Formats: sequence, C-alpha cells, structure tokens
Amino acid sequence: MNSKQISEQIRCKQSFLCIGLDSDINKIPNHLLNEKYPVFEFNKQIIDATAEYCIAYKPNTAFYEACGEIGFEQLVMTADYIKNKYPEIFLIADAKRGDIDNTSKMYAQAFFEKMKFDALTLSPYMGRDTVKPYFEFPNKWVILLALTSNDSASDFQTIKLENGKVLYEEVITQSLQWGNANNTMYVVGATKAEMLKGIREIIPNHFLLIPGIGAQGGSLADVAKYGMNNLCGLIVNSSRAIIFADSSNNFAKEAGKKAKEIQQKMAQLINN
Amino acid sequence: MNSKQISEQIRCKQSFLCIGLDSDINKIPNHLLNEKYPVFEFNKQIIDATAEYCIAYKPNTAFYEACGEIGFEQLVMTADYIKNKYPEIFLIADAKRGDIDNTSKMYAQAFFEKMKFDALTLSPYMGRDTVKPYFEFPNKWVILLALTSNDSASDFQTIKLENGKVLYEEVITQSLQWGNANNTMYVVGATKAEMLKGIREIIPNHFLLIPGIGAQGGSLADVAKYGMNNLCGLIVNSSRAIIFADSSNNFAKEAGKKAKEIQQKMAQLINN
Repeated sequence: MNSKQISEQIRCKQSFLCIGLDSDINKIPNHLLNEKYPVFEFNKQIIDATAEYCIAYKPNTAFYEACGEIGFEQLVMTADYIKNKYPEIFLIADAKRGDIDNTSKMYAQAFFEKMKFDALTLSPYMGRDTVKPYFEFPNKWVILLALTSNDSASDFQTIKLENGKVLYEEVITQSLQWGNANNTMYVVGATKAEMLKGIREIIPNHFLLIPGIGAQGGSLADVAKYGMNNLCGLIVNSSRAIIFADSSNNFAKEAGKKAKEIQQKMAQLINN
Repeated sequence: MNSKQISEQIRCKQSFLCIGLDSDINKIPNHLLNEKYPVFEFNKQIIDATAEYCIAYKPNTAFYEACGEIGFEQLVMTADYIKNKYPEIFLIADAKRGDIDNTSKMYAQAFFEKMKFDALTLSPYMGRDTVKPYFEFPNKWVILLALTSNDSASDFQTIKLENGKVLYEEVITQSLQWGNANNTMYVVGATKAEMLKGIREIIPNHFLLIPGIGAQGGSLADVAKYGMNNLCGLIVNSSRAIIFADSSNNFAKEAGKKAKEIQQKMAQLINN
C-alpha cells in the first residue's frame, strides 16, 4: 500500500484511526472461550463492527505469541480476514523487531509475504542493517520506534547527546538516510504530544503512528494540533479503550460505538 | 536456572559455547525437506551431536516465525526436546523483544512458562518498563542488547552522550538499577572484543552473551582475554559455522566436530 492510498482512505473515511488488536486471551469476553479460535472470533467481530471507522488495524504480536502455535495461527487468520474482506485497510504488525541482516530478511518474508501485512514496527537500537532489508519489499513499510508512549521512554530516548540532539531526534535524522516518506513511518507517543512540533520540523511529510490515546491518557486534540500536516500524516492508535469497551455479548457493538465516537472527533479535526 | 548452575556446567564441560539454532529452512540439508517437521528434525540431530560440547542453545525466533504456525510449532518442539533430554543446558530465546509493560508480561509467560526458555534477549530502547516485568519470574534471565556484533551497531550504540558515556555504557549503567547479576546478562559482540575491557570495569560479575565468532569474524582468544572473569562469565555463541558446517547426510556429525573443536579451544582458555 502506498502513501497516496493511505491518504485517500483518511479522506474518504474522515478518520485516521488505527485499532490495536491487542487481543489478550485473558480479557476477551467469556462466552468466546468455548470457540476453537476464541481470539480470532473476537477479532472478527471487532473488525466487522469497526472497519468503517478506522483506516488501519495493528495486532500486537505479543498477545498472539503468548498463546503458542494456536496464537500464531490466529494472528495469520486475522491478517487474512482483514486483507480479504477489507483490502483498503492498512495492516500493521506491531512486532517491535530489530535483528541482523539475514534475520531481518526472514522477518520481512514472514510478515510481508506470508502474512500480507503492510507494515512492521521496528526498534532502531541495532542501526541501519536491521532496517534496510525491509525496503526491498515495494509498497511495504517500516515503522521505526522513535519516541514511545511508555513512562520509561525517557530512560534512553530523550537522553542528550554530545551533538546537541536527543536520541530519538538522532534516530529520526539518521534514518532519513536509509528510507523515505514512502517506506518509513515513525512511532511517536501521544503522551508526548508537545514534542510532535519539533519532530514535524525534521520530518514534515512522513506518516507518524501515534499510540497512547485512550487507556494511556494522551490527548487527540493535542496530537492533531502539533502533529498534523496538509495530508493529515497521522495514524492514531487506540487499543484497549475500543476493543475492551464491553465484555458482554454486546462487546462488538460497543467497540463499534467507541470507534465511531473517535472517528467523529477525528472528522472535526481533519476539517478544522 | 541460576548463575551457579551455569558456572558449574562451564566447569564440568570445559566449555562456554552456545550454539545458535538459526535453523533457516532454506539452508538445512535437502534430504530433510520431506520430513513433516524438517527444522525440528534438523535441530534434533544437531542437538544430539553437539550437546556434550556446549552449555547453551539459542534459537533465533525469526527463523521459526518466518515459517508461520508450523515454524512456531517447531520452536516449541525444539525447546521441549532440549529441556527434556538435556535439562542442564541453558536455553535462550533470541527474540530481541522490547514492548510496554502489559505486553512484556505476555512475552514472559510465553517464553518462560509455556516454552521453558531460561532467558530472552531484549532491546533496551524503550527503557525499564519493558524489562522489569521479566524479573518477576525466578531463575529466569533477561539478556539485554548492549553492543551488538553487526556493522551498524555504531549508528546508535556507540554514540557519544552529553554525560561523557556512550549509549551502550549508559544502557548497562542504568540497567544495573533494574536487575542484578543473577537475572541480567548483556549481549556484547565478539567483533568489538577490545571494548570488553571497559565493559568489565562496569560489570565485572555479570554473564556476557557474545555473538559474532565464526561467520561474523570475531576472535575467541580476544573475547577471553578481555571478557573472562574468575568464573568465566562468558557464553560465546556460534551459529552458522557449526550448524551449517556440512549439508550432506553427515551434517550432524560435522556440526559435532566443529563444536568439539571450539570446545577444545575454550578448555585451553579456561585453564590459562
């Protein structure tokens, strides 16, 4: 999927919402636990109830791997389901990988070819070798961790360097030599919205993937204020606040309502 | 597994060798491809031929995930096989994970409880939140990426900070507040052996996991010279140079020979 297609979807749906399918087996409604594939059944209903309000889904692979082979199988089933039924939707594997060259190729094949994901989140710690192999796959995306939404992001990401930058700025600056605005996005936490201004000075045109609204407390209005560019340029994620809005038989309907609420706020922000 | 048990194994086997089970389906001997579980069959034969010469195995999870569900299944089978037949062996999941709190717990359960790994490699970029949940599992280990063996390790890991340290030193120093020498190890590439001296000044007692000898070109003698402590304190990994030493029906026997060669060099270094 290319950047035009993503922007087109934002325009049509009046949304820049990504729904995080952090489908923890311990949190899904009890009545699904008798299914052979409970997590997939949960995801399927969530997806059908929310697809008109969002432009992206982002399964966090941890929640699938935690269930072993059957978890992995349900990740594959979820990706297939989305890409078959809603091919316009941008599909992100939140895997936070990062490994040497030959290993990155294996990951790229797994996520981009076998599983049809459009994008993969990566940790930059090991440098360019661990990122570049992904660029060999046309219309696929690397989403680099820059400034994450968790408390301890400040342990290293905002540490001051001798060259006057902080680490996340150095990560963004250096990685501009590796890829471009058509194959690279950056993770910037909504909990750090005021820092988006400085980041937009370095990368005015790149898409930013913004976690941290909802359960983690970031403000959507602030994110839009500091992070939006002419084409929107934002993909804002909410996970738990949508998918676990309700734990009854009505869970999917309630998730749809929550997603619609956020989409409506986003429509206003797009039109301002 | 605790640090005493690891040191005891080093003493008994006169070895500090870890064998990386980077069992790429595209590189395993052709005659195994007809098996239902070719990667597991490959691993099983490699393990039986090399277990007496090594103290640890380290499957890199990428090579298993790249094969989808059946790959993941073979990772589980491999871990079970090792822990059932060779319970004294230290089992490392080279996963290079790193994610927020609730996700880290899922990973810990997956790798430490469901799969019986003793240790998991982690990227430090997101800070302490992403590491501490693992310490709730007694006798399990976090192995933090500090200074990796790949060329582009220097992109960020050796960058100079305002406080006078370089980033990997800051990672080691800060993380000493999170864990201790009984639950934390560090990855330091053999290709950077001379830097081990400075690292040993910060962490004289921690185990170091050293990749990069063999195919990546690091020197075992240099690693021992600069990195060994009184109890050895090293776990040195070799992957491709052992497991792909031969691609004929004799592959396991040849892998055993290679492992024995390295073990004999290690015995000399231990006794010097």
